Amino acid sequence: MSERIRIKDALQSAAPLDRIVIKGWVRTKRDAKGFSFLEVNDGSCLTNIQIIIDEKAAGFDELKLIHTGAAVAVIGKLAESPGKGQKWEVHATELQLVGAADPETYPLQKKRHSDEFLRTIAHLRPRTNKYGAIFRIRSESAFAIHQFFHERGFVYVHTPILTGSDCEGAGEMFRVTTLPPGYTKTGEGMYEEDFFGKEANLTVSGQLEGEAYACSLDRIYTFGPTFRAENSNTPRHAAEFWMIEPEFAFADLNDNMALAEDLVKYMTEYILNHCAEDLELFAKYVDQTLMGSLNNLVVSEFVRLPYREAIQILQQSGQKFEFPVNFGTDLQTEHERFLCETHFNKPVIVYNFPKTIKPFYMRVNDDNETVAAMDVLVPRVGELIGGSQREERLDVLKQRIQELGMDETPYWWYLDLRRFGTVPHSGFGLGFERFLMMVTGVANIRDVIPFPRTPKSLDF
Amino acid sequence: MSERIRIKDALQSAAPLDRIVIKGWVRTKRDAKGFSFLEVNDGSCLTNIQIIIDEKAAGFDELKLIHTGAAVAVIGKLAESPGKGQKWEVHATELQLVGAADPETYPLQKKRHSDEFLRTIAHLRPRTNKYGAIFRIRSESAFAIHQFFHERGFVYVHTPILTGSDCEGAGEMFRVTTLPPGYTKTGEGMYEEDFFGKEANLTVSGQLEGEAYACSLDRIYTFGPTFRAENSNTPRHAAEFWMIEPEFAFADLNDNMALAEDLVKYMTEYILNHCAEDLELFAKYVDQTLMGSLNNLVVSEFVRLPYREAIQILQQSGQKFEFPVNFGTDLQTEHERFLCETHFNKPVIVYNFPKTIKPFYMRVNDDNETVAAMDVLVPRVGELIGGSQREERLDVLKQRIQELGMDETPYWWYLDLRRFGTVPHSGFGLGFERFLMMVTGVANIRDVIPFPRTPKSLDF
Repeated sequence: MSERIRIKDALQSAAPLDRIVIKGWVRTKRDAKGFSFLEVNDGSCLTNIQIIIDEKAAGFDELKLIHTGAAVAVIGKLAESPGKGQKWEVHATELQLVGAADPETYPLQKKRHSDEFLRTIAHLRPRTNKYGAIFRIRSESAFAIHQFFHERGFVYVHTPILTGSDCEGAGEMFRVTTLPPGYTKTGEGMYEEDFFGKEANLTVSGQLEGEAYACSLDRIYTFGPTFRAENSNTPRHAAEFWMIEPEFAFADLNDNMALAEDLVKYMTEYILNHCAEDLELFAKYVDQTLMGSLNNLVVSEFVRLPYREAIQILQQSGQKFEFPVNFGTDLQTEHERFLCETHFNKPVIVYNFPKTIKPFYMRVNDDNETVAAMDVLVPRVGELIGGSQREERLDVLKQRIQELGMDETPYWWYLDLRRFGTVPHSGFGLGFERFLMMVTGVANIRDVIPFPRTPKSLDF
Repeated sequence: MSERIRIKDALQSAAPLDRIVIKGWVRTKRDAKGFSFLEVNDGSCLTNIQIIIDEKAAGFDELKLIHTGAAVAVIGKLAESPGKGQKWEVHATELQLVGAADPETYPLQKKRHSDEFLRTIAHLRPRTNKYGAIFRIRSESAFAIHQFFHERGFVYVHTPILTGSDCEGAGEMFRVTTLPPGYTKTGEGMYEEDFFGKEANLTVSGQLEGEAYACSLDRIYTFGPTFRAENSNTPRHAAEFWMIEPEFAFADLNDNMALAEDLVKYMTEYILNHCAEDLELFAKYVDQTLMGSLNNLVVSEFVRLPYREAIQILQQSGQKFEFPVNFGTDLQTEHERFLCETHFNKPVIVYNFPKTIKPFYMRVNDDNETVAAMDVLVPRVGELIGGSQREERLDVLKQRIQELGMDETPYWWYLDLRRFGTVPHSGFGLGFERFLMMVTGVANIRDVIPFPRTPKSLDF
């Protein structure tokens, strides 16, 4: 093990090597007279390494048992390759079959498989070029996020997944229980025997708890799974997805927009710099406008557009939209994409939305008609980020809760943050999968989540 | 905002500064004749900055409204402090009350509060020295984990939280549903109207899904929330906690032990280097053996002790244990702590456990009596890590499933990993909160989780 070299490192070698050990999975085998070629991949990068094995190599006989999907160990020399498109190849001195794959039954034969088919073998699809690339990019994107916030002194907070109320009204919630199916007690005492003694749900957002920490540690972010029990089978919705939610104190809407823009650029630039090889695959096979739009994104100043002006632009666009727009309606993906892809051709931050379409915790502007909310719109996905300055004034917040006919009681602790040392503060939520869709061009959210969960679909 | 300096940076300034802007929360106020001292904290570090305000400062009148817990903004000069224990102080030229805190009702007055009381105000406790320190250490520990794995080429994988079966038998599970309480249909069709159309639970481990990714991308890790519906009210158990689970291919039990030891040392050393000020608080007020044992841990070679020998040592120890030990019994915390705290005085990795007490997926040793499992035991918490080499042989794995009377059907995809290109592979789980308890000396898991969830307790 210790002397094994990963293929990524072997391919980046500065000089030939007399002896290397490669372990990985065979992608293809080609036989010639007296020798064979194996293309081997170990997940460390997109590119396979080519292994040349001739009759003199120990274990040459095993070759007949080796097919696509088999695990092998190879000892050999790293030598310059005469072939084009590759600098190095391995001349095997010893070949070992680690685990076979029966060509009759192994589902990943050398041909293009549909995304739909690959979803049914989600446990094997990361063995393909495309899904290997997606999940390396997913991992690097997550690292970029942690690095971005760490550099800026934000504390990573794990807000709870299990919550006691459907407070926020951000969406349909899953209920969590330890009572057996068919448990019939309702009304008073219905939760008496349940684990928490009361209704428990899966979180739709860690924002409110994040605010509590921002009002002590000044700058925090969450990065964790979030849930929506919405029964919608679309390429954009999953029941379980990951979200990044920074909250920071002494910050207004302008600070919020600046942080959001910095984050999106940082992540995108990080992926351009660290995942160039994987990105190329998507630029070539998935979306040929990809590199242009990503390179454009990192150098553009994001447009800052009041909601009111956005509505005017959309109304005067001459564009046929499925959903009409008027002051007081929420923007649909078609509008969002028109603004950033067609009208401005770069990311757009729409801000100051009508308070009638936004939740209670967003700060009411002086016009008493709009709130200090913002949405960041990007190519391919539309809304990537939604956020706001939070209402820090106790009286205004209580009035909003009342206006919306909500019960103040469960918010006692949230109101405490305004009772004791309240500060202007802001935050937003970034949908992690939406970022991945933007950066890869992959159009279905199911294909950027290792094991996606959607209505009636809970496999693996 | 942009000209604001955070207290951590101000305190590390190399030279006096003519004008700085500090924003934060007042920890204490002391009045003298004609001037006052404010100790202000902004969460960026444990230490407060001292502000001196005299009658000439703009806003001096606001002082009478400023008490512990109030949010303030201060403009002033950073000057050398004549006081001991602090290099810098701020001479205010302008003071602004941002948000008041009524001394009659603000719960965090300047005195020692019990941990039990502070749990009832979990939204405010990060404003105390101790909890600020805990949650900064929690954040830095998480960053250390990502950095450790990133440096080693491990891909971060988000394994699903919602799972379709209670496969693994690792513990009691929470059930997830969208059916209303009191829904009475049982038997056939009971899940027909439920979101996923079948039973859904919260994950107890991402291991099995992690293995699928290790068998494609070679090295992966998960870091996410995990759930246990065990009705046990102890200082060591929470219903929701975070776990780190690496899985890596072409790796045996020795590689696994080496990775676990490297990880624990890396994390501990990272905290020693990056959180020295916060750690000092725990060494002083929580556990005076803390620094000794952490410094010892990072330089020690962890003991590697076969389970069989561990049992002998415990039997011959002359120690009175609550639970007797024999070959075939699981180690209890008292045994684990005896081994690493008393007998060896350093971390111990116990390995090769009897197969009768371990789950089906652990690799059976040649003796057919033990499996290639390991537990890493550390001071203060006992078991920090549990892991194993995974059974990669299809026939042996199927036989184990049968032996244990389990149904093979839901594991079709897990068995596929052994059908197609199977490889020796290993992995483990590290309880994140246990690490935090080890590194801070905090004895109750509720105090290292921002909003802990335990039986009958689901506040905030």
